[in-house]
Amino acid sequence: VTPAPRRGRRCGDPEVTRQAILTAARATFAGAGYEQATIRAIATRAGVDPSLVHHYFGSKEDLFASAHQYPVSPAEILEALEGGAGTLGERVTRLLLEADAKGSEPFEALIRAAVSNQSARRMLRSFIERGVLDTAASHLAVPDARLRVALAGSHLMGLFVMRRVIGVDIATATDTERIVQVVAPVIDHYLTGDLSRGPAVVDAFN
Amino acid sequence: VTPAPRRGRRCGDPEVTRQAILTAARATFAGAGYEQATIRAIATRAGVDPSLVHHYFGSKEDLFASAHQYPVSPAEILEALEGGAGTLGERVTRLLLEADAKGSEPFEALIRAAVSNQSARRMLRSFIERGVLDTAASHLAVPDARLRVALAGSHLMGLFVMRRVIGVDIATATDTERIVQVVAPVIDHYLTGDLSRGPAVVDAFN
Repeated sequence: VTPAPRRGRRCGDPEVTRQAILTAARATFAGAGYEQATIRAIATRAGVDPSLVHHYFGSKEDLFASAHQYPVSPAEILEALEGGAGTLGERVTRLLLEADAKGSEPFEALIRAAVSNQSARRMLRSFIERGVLDTAASHLAVPDARLRVALAGSHLMGLFVMRRVIGVDIATATDTERIVQVVAPVIDHYLTGDLSRGPAVVDAFN
Repeated sequence: VTPAPRRGRRCGDPEVTRQAILTAARATFAGAGYEQATIRAIATRAGVDPSLVHHYFGSKEDLFASAHQYPVSPAEILEALEGGAGTLGERVTRLLLEADAKGSEPFEALIRAAVSNQSARRMLRSFIERGVLDTAASHLAVPDARLRVALAGSHLMGLFVMRRVIGVDIATATDTERIVQVVAPVIDHYLTGDLSRGPAVVDAFN
């Protein structure tokens, strides 16, 4: 009797295995798109058991974020959303402001691709819709949760790009604590406030 | 006596002249960078008089925006800032939400270049600092004007990218009027409110 074939790598350098999974993930996401790509297909391509992919990288959205070296992972966003409501805006704002934007080739390649071709753009869109908005909204027990997360997310994403990617002077020169202090109440308003009222505004022109 | 050389084109198809100026502008900005590029150098390259460049395209920042087909020009932003303070946030928000994001090859090329190379990134940064922040801040008679414009701008830029470039479902499906209604008070707060207080937040968790 021949022994049953071994399913995937059982030994070897864990770092090599991790890198093999990341390489397989990028190729699979690029080929099949975000929604069609499965953990099983990625595991097969990497020559490992699917459980090992989950073990190393968590959910499909976390694997996508890791494979493209996203500065912030969906798991970190959820962790920030799960704490008490009192400092919610501050935690989420701080997470984005302290994220690392050091030259990440896969992340930059994804952005370039998303600007120039339709299929990469669709992949990024699905990741944001399923991996970020759906997941985060399911943790916010408020009406219009997806719209709220999209508004807060668009603001923080724009701030991240201006500060860490483009490096606009006033955004990089202003102390992180000052920005957190000014932006966190707005993020709180979007995530948990009364959207129909809008924030109270003191008009400095008068 | 030989006649004095004619300075620039005096006749011919205005559209051909406009296109020649835009081509010369892209080449000059890319070669010299935003700050070093001059209207004079662009005019020389295009074979026209500098006054013609001003006549067709206004200031250097407007020419830069036109040459790269920016969805919103600095002149339009200033116009929105110049109206009454009461509807300031609404005008600025509406300007960005109604901007046209139809496939603009020069704009997309600039973004791709800014992600992948340092000199294009520097050019985009200088344009934002000089052409947008300095100009807009000089029209806002409030303390911290550049920071305010950067915060409002980062939010609107992120919203524009999410809605018109990536096309995230909830952002495209939500009525423009609804988004204006929710976002405009936040933009008003950033541009003219009391930043040290933060907006009043109604906590929907309680």
